[in-house]
Amino acid sequence: MAVYTEVADDELARFVANYDVGALLSAKGIAEGVENSNYLLRAEKAFFILTLYEKRVREEDLPFFITLMEHLNARGVTCPLPVRNRAGEALGRLAGRPAAMVTFLDGMGVRRPAVAHCAAVGEALARLHVAGRDFPMRRRNGLTVDAWRPLFDRARDRADEVSPGLGARAAVALAELENNWPADLPVGVIHADLFPDNVFFIGSKLSGLIDFYFACTDCLAYDLAICLNAWCFEPDASFNLTKGQAMIAGYQRVRALEGAEIAALPVLCRGAALRFMLTRLVDWLNVPAGALVRPKDPLEYDRKLSFHRRVASAGDYGLAR
Amino acid sequence: MAVYTEVADDELARFVANYDVGALLSAKGIAEGVENSNYLLRAEKAFFILTLYEKRVREEDLPFFITLMEHLNARGVTCPLPVRNRAGEALGRLAGRPAAMVTFLDGMGVRRPAVAHCAAVGEALARLHVAGRDFPMRRRNGLTVDAWRPLFDRARDRADEVSPGLGARAAVALAELENNWPADLPVGVIHADLFPDNVFFIGSKLSGLIDFYFACTDCLAYDLAICLNAWCFEPDASFNLTKGQAMIAGYQRVRALEGAEIAALPVLCRGAALRFMLTRLVDWLNVPAGALVRPKDPLEYDRKLSFHRRVASAGDYGLAR
Repeated sequence: MAVYTEVADDELARFVANYDVGALLSAKGIAEGVENSNYLLRAEKAFFILTLYEKRVREEDLPFFITLMEHLNARGVTCPLPVRNRAGEALGRLAGRPAAMVTFLDGMGVRRPAVAHCAAVGEALARLHVAGRDFPMRRRNGLTVDAWRPLFDRARDRADEVSPGLGARAAVALAELENNWPADLPVGVIHADLFPDNVFFIGSKLSGLIDFYFACTDCLAYDLAICLNAWCFEPDASFNLTKGQAMIAGYQRVRALEGAEIAALPVLCRGAALRFMLTRLVDWLNVPAGALVRPKDPLEYDRKLSFHRRVASAGDYGLAR
Repeated sequence: MAVYTEVADDELARFVANYDVGALLSAKGIAEGVENSNYLLRAEKAFFILTLYEKRVREEDLPFFITLMEHLNARGVTCPLPVRNRAGEALGRLAGRPAAMVTFLDGMGVRRPAVAHCAAVGEALARLHVAGRDFPMRRRNGLTVDAWRPLFDRARDRADEVSPGLGARAAVALAELENNWPADLPVGVIHADLFPDNVFFIGSKLSGLIDFYFACTDCLAYDLAICLNAWCFEPDASFNLTKGQAMIAGYQRVRALEGAEIAALPVLCRGAALRFMLTRLVDWLNVPAGALVRPKDPLEYDRKLSFHRRVASAGDYGLAR
C-alpha cells in the first residue's frame, strides 16, 4: 500500500513509448499491493497498471508470474494481462527495477465480504485451479511447511511481547503440522494469497483476480484453506459457517474435492493460519523506523488458529455432509 | 502523497450513486497531494478524482475552492471541474470527512522543468489571474506576511538544529519583509501553490492546473514570485535566468505587469522563499512519529532566499529590460 520507487516523468514516457499503446497521458502512483510499487497509467489506447517489482519479489520468479497471467487469461480466468512491448517482451526495466505493464481491471476489493462474495471466490478459485492444470512451469512454495520453522526461529524469542503465550501456542501448532502435513494431495498452480484485497467485484459480481506474486505449485486444497481463513471469519475471529458452506459449495460446483483433500482440510486450515500468523509476526517485530506501511496484526491469525484447533472435520467448515 | 482516510467500498458506492455518472467500477487510492486523501474513481461514464478533505483544509473554505474551480473552468482555464450530485451539490460527506468529486485531468507533473515548461506556466498563471478578475468570492491568504512571525516563533528556538545560523538569517529576512511588504499592488485570485506537482503537461504542452487548496485573494505578482521560486531554480539552488525570462515573458504575453509590480518583484520573491522555508521548517521540526509523509527540505528555500537577497531588480529574474 505504497509507492516505493519514484519514476521520473521523462523516463516513464520513454518506457511506455516501447509499447504500442499510444502516448502516455497520465500516471498516478496508487496505493495497491504491499510488496511492489504500482502506477495507474493512462495511455491514448487504454488504462494500464505499471508494476515496479521491489526487493521482496525475486527477479528469477517473474517469468513464472507473467507467463501464468497470460496462461490464465487465455483460459478465461479474468486477471491482469501482461502487455508485451514492440520487442515482444512483457518484462522490462524502469528506474533500476524490473517492471511490467498489465491491463487495467475494473472492480474493487470488498472490505466486508458477504456470503455471495464467498461463494463467488470459491468458484473462481476452482476455475483458477482447473485453468492451471496444463500450465507447464513450476515454482516451489517458499512459504509452506518447511519454511515455517525458520520463520518461527526469527520471531520466537519475542513472540510473547505481542501476546503472552503466543510463542508456546505457535510451537505446539508448528510441531503438530510438521508431523501431520499431508503429502499426496492433488498439486497444481495455486494463487496462495487470494485475500479480499486481491479479488475484484462490481457489486456482488466477481470481476477479476489480481496480485499473483505468491502464486506457486502446491496442494490445490491448501489454496482453499487460505481462502477459508481470509474470507469466512468475522472481525471478532468467529467463523461464519454460512460463508464457509457457500465457499466450499462454490468451489465444488467447478471442481469436486477428493476424499483425501476433504480429510486434510482441517490440517490445511491450521497450516494456512500459522503461515499468515508467522509472516505477520516477523513483519510486526521488524518494522523499520520510518516505515511507510503499517504491519498487519499477527494475532488475528492466532485467534483463527485457535478456532481451527477445535475443528473435527471438513464439515465444521461447511462441507455438505 | 498518501491516503489518510480509508473508505469502505459499500459506503463509496452509495456516495457515487448520488451522482449521475453510472455505476462505480473501480476505486484506487492515489499518491497525490500532501494535504488530502485522493481516490481515482472509474464510473461507467468517466474517470473522476474523489478528494476527502483532511484536517489541514478548513471546511468553511471549501465553497471558495469549489466555486473557484467552476469559475475558472467556465472561463477556459483547464482545471478539475467539481461534479454536482443529483441534489445540485458539489460538496458531500464521506467517511466522516467533507468530500468532492472532480473531473479527471490528463497530464503529468514534470520533475525536471525545462525552459518551455516555465514559459507555459507563466502564461497559464496570467490566464488564471485574468480569468479570476470577476470572481466574486474572497479568501484571506492565511500564509502571507502577517502569518510568518507566528510561524517563525514556533520554529526559531530549534531552527539552528536544521542548519547553523538559519534562525538568524530568517529573523533578518522576516524583519526586512515586515517593513517593506508592498501594500498597493493589483489584487485578485491567486493559486498560491503552483509548484511542478500542480501543473500537468502532456509532453511539453500544458494540460491543466490542479490543487487549488491554497488559492486566495492576494497580490497577483506574489503568485508569479512563488512560481519563479518553484520553477526557475536548478537542483543546486542556482537561478536559471533563461527559465526566469521565459516565465516572465510568458506571463506578460497574457497580462502586462504594472510598474509597481515590477519594482516589488524582488521583495515578493524573498517573501515567497521565506514563506515556504518557514512552513517547511515547522513541518520538519514537527514530524509525528510514524508519519507517512516525508517532510520537504526547508534549506532549499533558505538557499533560494540567499539568492534573492543579492538581487537588485526584476531584471535579475529575467524581466526584459
